[in-house]
Amino acid sequence: MKITKIIEKTKFINSSMKNAYIDFSKMTLSLVAICSDVKKNGKQLIGYGFNSNGRYGQGNLMRERFIPRIMESNQNDLLNEKGNNFDPHKIWDVMMRNEKPGGHGERSVAVGTIDMAIWDLVSKIEDKPLYQLLSERYGNNKPEKKVFVYAAGGYYWPDGDLNSLKSEIKSYLDRGYSVVKKKIGGMSLSEDCKRIEAVLKILGPNQKLAVDANGKFNLKTALDYARELSNYNLFWYEEPGDPLDFELHYKLTKEYKKSLATGENLFSHQDARNLIRYSGIRKDKDYLQFDCALSYGLVEYLKILKVIKEFGWSFDRCIPHGGHQMSLAIAAGLGLGGNESYPDLFQPYGGFPDNVEVHNGYVELPDLPGIGFEGKNDLIKQMRDLIN
Amino acid sequence: MKITKIIEKTKFINSSMKNAYIDFSKMTLSLVAICSDVKKNGKQLIGYGFNSNGRYGQGNLMRERFIPRIMESNQNDLLNEKGNNFDPHKIWDVMMRNEKPGGHGERSVAVGTIDMAIWDLVSKIEDKPLYQLLSERYGNNKPEKKVFVYAAGGYYWPDGDLNSLKSEIKSYLDRGYSVVKKKIGGMSLSEDCKRIEAVLKILGPNQKLAVDANGKFNLKTALDYARELSNYNLFWYEEPGDPLDFELHYKLTKEYKKSLATGENLFSHQDARNLIRYSGIRKDKDYLQFDCALSYGLVEYLKILKVIKEFGWSFDRCIPHGGHQMSLAIAAGLGLGGNESYPDLFQPYGGFPDNVEVHNGYVELPDLPGIGFEGKNDLIKQMRDLIN
Repeated sequence: MKITKIIEKTKFINSSMKNAYIDFSKMTLSLVAICSDVKKNGKQLIGYGFNSNGRYGQGNLMRERFIPRIMESNQNDLLNEKGNNFDPHKIWDVMMRNEKPGGHGERSVAVGTIDMAIWDLVSKIEDKPLYQLLSERYGNNKPEKKVFVYAAGGYYWPDGDLNSLKSEIKSYLDRGYSVVKKKIGGMSLSEDCKRIEAVLKILGPNQKLAVDANGKFNLKTALDYARELSNYNLFWYEEPGDPLDFELHYKLTKEYKKSLATGENLFSHQDARNLIRYSGIRKDKDYLQFDCALSYGLVEYLKILKVIKEFGWSFDRCIPHGGHQMSLAIAAGLGLGGNESYPDLFQPYGGFPDNVEVHNGYVELPDLPGIGFEGKNDLIKQMRDLIN
Repeated sequence: MKITKIIEKTKFINSSMKNAYIDFSKMTLSLVAICSDVKKNGKQLIGYGFNSNGRYGQGNLMRERFIPRIMESNQNDLLNEKGNNFDPHKIWDVMMRNEKPGGHGERSVAVGTIDMAIWDLVSKIEDKPLYQLLSERYGNNKPEKKVFVYAAGGYYWPDGDLNSLKSEIKSYLDRGYSVVKKKIGGMSLSEDCKRIEAVLKILGPNQKLAVDANGKFNLKTALDYARELSNYNLFWYEEPGDPLDFELHYKLTKEYKKSLATGENLFSHQDARNLIRYSGIRKDKDYLQFDCALSYGLVEYLKILKVIKEFGWSFDRCIPHGGHQMSLAIAAGLGLGGNESYPDLFQPYGGFPDNVEVHNGYVELPDLPGIGFEGKNDLIKQMRDLIN
């Protein structure tokens, strides 16, 4: 059993939209295929992966360091004890050989993307959905195929106004979402409040709005927003300040009594642990958004979940960033609280298999082997193009 | 006034040696030249930079993101107010456009390397040593040209034994160093103690040994080592555990009453601030080793120094990692406590200008414009090869 080839291609996901921190005009991501010599029904099995938006494609780091380490290994060292499948943990150790501790960025994306493709391949070799494999190996053996998802959007567009924002949000509600998210921090507080109020007016009784500052605010601005946001019944207030400024978060939790969410820009279990140790976030109301695709993959995410458990948090406080099917599978397999979804953005990479619909804010995962990419026509077409 | 070209070349600094965490057989670094249209004495001025060892060359990140952002900018936006020199802070802001917060690794090396070359160019345009420019702009206008340096070595070599270790250390002492450093954590505690005692025996009365675990230990092992190391009169105990495990450091400071050193694997002012906030390190005895070449350059290092000052630390607790002339210039210009030096390793990149000798643990910097690379023949030759 061998990995015969690992292919990466960097794709543009350019868009004219902005959040409070960056614009996406030159944003890229990496698409990866891992080819094996394993066949099922006469067809060679291939694992696919990609990284979620915001931290750029990392093909060159893969080609310089991580792919060669895998390909130059004794391939038997990459297999599980029985020798009948690849072992993602062993492959992870091989990738991280001769990497120093600390400095968790960029390489965490390169490793996370390859790791996603490994898990896709491993569950295809077992001929079962990844969520089922995860539930058997690390969970309670009862995957919850229904997963909560919320619609992320509400970016700042060059010609955007209140009407375009409202029709965007309404289209998410029409598609079955119960929670929608919009950006804040790209305009003044009073303008942002107008945008929030415009959205709140079109929400029904069981529908909620989350807001996302993308780490933009200093303590004073974060508190100014907190005071205004306290007047609304929001789902959460996301990334108020720099993701590593735990003191800012600590002070904010003393003033803002409602739910916060953060973690998408922390890329290791060490950083996740520091957030929980020092930021004052509250296990009964706040949300953790660590995204395995940006942070060394599921092998590292399992370490993050171990930290979460050690500190007495429930897995249902985890609603990962990224809107990809990998986190959807983890949510279903290990009982996370849900997953982000970008109904109209970053396509064809995010989203669900084609026949999956959102009902009252939940999707139900189909029984596809692997992560489920084969069920999403536009995505699997791009993935298959990698090897043709 | 324009930047006409930015060139990067990735160089192998391969070696068969190991520390407790990695081997250096495939280690690389980036060498950078920034060409300007500014001439002095008929010659075009060029700034040079490179990143210090341990975190790999980052040429591809430079080519994908950071160099294009500089070259596609309105070049007037890169100049100071008078328009008579480049402004490193403005160039830094341009490089970091559309970069999300958090995730400080890899890109911090790419930006740090370019930033080094910018400062070299800026001080060449002012026709003065960088340490003098820094002292004028950010210091007390009285640069201290004599800088403390210590000799870093004592790695684990494939055929190394106690005799080869002793002769290596002796050669550093013979060359005028008063403090030498060796690795620990690559063997058992008792074997490491034998190596330490072998070195201690050859030290004179004003000579000291520092030891470096390269972040390898968990809390128990770090404490086990601490108990043994307490018996020796060491200069410091470096990177006992994971650089982001502030709790480990906190517990260690309660047990180990002598000097610790850490910080070389923290790459932003946010991470540096967290170390100071949470790790319990002590401003009267511990050392901070942040290395600008790995952590977004001097523009970010100035933010780190601001944090250090805010928390009441003296700059002389800073003895940066990396052994490069950039930190030597910062030490001289802003009053750091000294700098690392690799007398025999990572050549020709580290070290001092050719005519500089170590006396009683100090070097005296010559009056070369820029960082001083032109005074080191083997290094400047490689740098000039970039543009020929």
